[in-house]
Amino acid sequence: MPTPIHWQHRYARRTEQIQSSAIREILKLTQSPDIISFAGGLPAPESFPIEAIRAAADYVLTEIGSRSLQYYPTEGYPPLRELICEIIAEQGVSLTPENVLITSGSQQALDLLGKIFINRGDHILVESPSYLGALQAFNVYGVEYIAVPFDDEGMRADALEEALRSGPKFIYLIPNFQNPTGITMSLRRRKQVIELAERFGVPIVEDDPYGKLRYEGEHIPSMLALDAEYRGACDDYCGNVIYLSTFSKLLAPGLRMAWVTAPAEVIRKFVLGKQGADLHSPTFNQFLTYEAAKDGALDRFVERTRQLYGERRQVMLEALEASFPEGVRWTRPEGGMFLWATLPAGMDAVEILHKAVERKVAFVPGGYFHPNGGGENTMRLNFSNASPESIREGIARLGQVLKEHMA
Amino acid sequence: MPTPIHWQHRYARRTEQIQSSAIREILKLTQSPDIISFAGGLPAPESFPIEAIRAAADYVLTEIGSRSLQYYPTEGYPPLRELICEIIAEQGVSLTPENVLITSGSQQALDLLGKIFINRGDHILVESPSYLGALQAFNVYGVEYIAVPFDDEGMRADALEEALRSGPKFIYLIPNFQNPTGITMSLRRRKQVIELAERFGVPIVEDDPYGKLRYEGEHIPSMLALDAEYRGACDDYCGNVIYLSTFSKLLAPGLRMAWVTAPAEVIRKFVLGKQGADLHSPTFNQFLTYEAAKDGALDRFVERTRQLYGERRQVMLEALEASFPEGVRWTRPEGGMFLWATLPAGMDAVEILHKAVERKVAFVPGGYFHPNGGGENTMRLNFSNASPESIREGIARLGQVLKEHMA
Repeated sequence: MPTPIHWQHRYARRTEQIQSSAIREILKLTQSPDIISFAGGLPAPESFPIEAIRAAADYVLTEIGSRSLQYYPTEGYPPLRELICEIIAEQGVSLTPENVLITSGSQQALDLLGKIFINRGDHILVESPSYLGALQAFNVYGVEYIAVPFDDEGMRADALEEALRSGPKFIYLIPNFQNPTGITMSLRRRKQVIELAERFGVPIVEDDPYGKLRYEGEHIPSMLALDAEYRGACDDYCGNVIYLSTFSKLLAPGLRMAWVTAPAEVIRKFVLGKQGADLHSPTFNQFLTYEAAKDGALDRFVERTRQLYGERRQVMLEALEASFPEGVRWTRPEGGMFLWATLPAGMDAVEILHKAVERKVAFVPGGYFHPNGGGENTMRLNFSNASPESIREGIARLGQVLKEHMA
Repeated sequence: MPTPIHWQHRYARRTEQIQSSAIREILKLTQSPDIISFAGGLPAPESFPIEAIRAAADYVLTEIGSRSLQYYPTEGYPPLRELICEIIAEQGVSLTPENVLITSGSQQALDLLGKIFINRGDHILVESPSYLGALQAFNVYGVEYIAVPFDDEGMRADALEEALRSGPKFIYLIPNFQNPTGITMSLRRRKQVIELAERFGVPIVEDDPYGKLRYEGEHIPSMLALDAEYRGACDDYCGNVIYLSTFSKLLAPGLRMAWVTAPAEVIRKFVLGKQGADLHSPTFNQFLTYEAAKDGALDRFVERTRQLYGERRQVMLEALEASFPEGVRWTRPEGGMFLWATLPAGMDAVEILHKAVERKVAFVPGGYFHPNGGGENTMRLNFSNASPESIREGIARLGQVLKEHMA
């Protein structure tokens, strides 16, 4: 009689570090349609340019045909990589397609960063709190985090200098409208980080999914741009910044089209890693994204999305003002998709979440975003996905839960 | 003055094991349009059901709309997973969607196998020669290969038993129309492998991209089916086989849609690994693939592809008979996309390749497919991509090169 296989004895050690994203588990809890969820990180479906995507799909299949359905070189579709160079050129940085790799979502770029750079036991510097998907991607490679404290200008430079003395593999940052806090790193702080990273010879990974989604205030140059300026002219791009961004927030996430830029020699390492990981990103999606986004179309879509999210942000800020009890503070993000509320010390956001779900409203407790603990009294609120009416109603319910709890 | 960063000191140790696929490098050499290439593993573009894909894209964007462009749970689109259960049910195996994960090409399933199962220094059993993309995916995880000798019935059972005593993590096999050899494992041999794997408690990974592409002979039950039969009834699928297949050879590879089936607890590990790797496969491609493939459409596409490739295989076999010199042997694959030629002992297929490229014809030297060396006098020939005329002309040129070399 055959016996069942003992799978649990067969898994690799690293699987102990593969945890399900807490956000995804919470999303499952909150998927019932009667819940108003501020928990996810979903773009508004109304922002997707469906007509343009349909026209692009039709064009690609009619005019380009089978080439868009065939295997393709790992590096990606050259016109799409050129288009990404044009997007980057708006920042005043001159790249060539050799500096660009198309990835299957930014999540894949994060996984490849781990694959290429992280030996078990290596440490990297991260903001605390930081993006959970990045932590999840790096965890698999046995990384240890040095959590650099954070204030309303971003990662603190004094703490960074101390942390750099530990010899980290890289610094991982989300300078614009950070996920989860919504905080934007100041220009002064960015320049300090670049100079420190240069002094210690440590690369900067700049994750910038939301850079174009600013609703208030002045654009601040990216780390990529500031580093290029700091270094001055060189023949090829020779900077210290690996820059990640995505079409997920500009076009639609369901196409899984994103990119990484870096010095050409680093891109070649990424390409080898990606060959083994998925050969290449879907040919069809690359052709489709290029056709939908080219000739300035992307900027028109982004403008519409900015209007939509800017209004929702405003609605949420006003609702918080109207409904949240005294003693609760929150950030005022100048862009992006999230804001961050801090409850009085000693309060437990996980406990609040359970009460909130009973009232049919959800968020993500902030503790999950801290790689080494802390933040138990914080919460992340997404404002991009729910309608203005739902935002008002949901924040009112959440305010009620908080008031009752704090009474 | 800022100094350039020393990237070479930053890479992880495992990157030494990330090598560019030899096939991909050769493909670059042979991409000039005047070369007749038997080197790649490309499906025929004429086989892609472009009209059906266009109709499906239009339906998805018109009728389903933004949901097909939004983020999606990692596990994949339930109707597509149901459809895969129906495809597997043709083999007499009863699975549920909990046994199925949608992957971004089978390459991702191979990468996830490495991620989930392989600790540095672990060994796995592979056919020698074996699929290069699998070796490339596993290499990153620091695997060592035990190459089990191969004959015209597939992996040799006597050698397998000896190899199993080394405690491998799993056995990796391509039983149908193997890449690179075109050899199909016999029924007797399959049953022996299942009994041995059961006796030693070692899982079998069955990679089956070509199973439906048979042009001659009788279908042989998959390892998945034979293992289920051997084990008898159980409530959930409780087998010893992790089964990989793909829409790349049935529909079109540029959509990067593939799947893995396994016991539900193993799929849950795969899901966690995939979350960190790319969150999920493109929502749009999953909806599109389901709409294009459902209601028996897939079988009609496959029937057309079988006709096309069956003819090309026949043309290549006849051309080989007509043009190749005495002393060269080749396999007669009953399906798939490749055949395998063996030159007289002592001949070097790499040397032949260089002469062949001068005559504008290309193939892959067989040595690359042997994880631990050997096979220098062998060559892999793809018959799915070139037209019958090109196959005749290319094999004639290659025969000429061989005759001159052997004269």
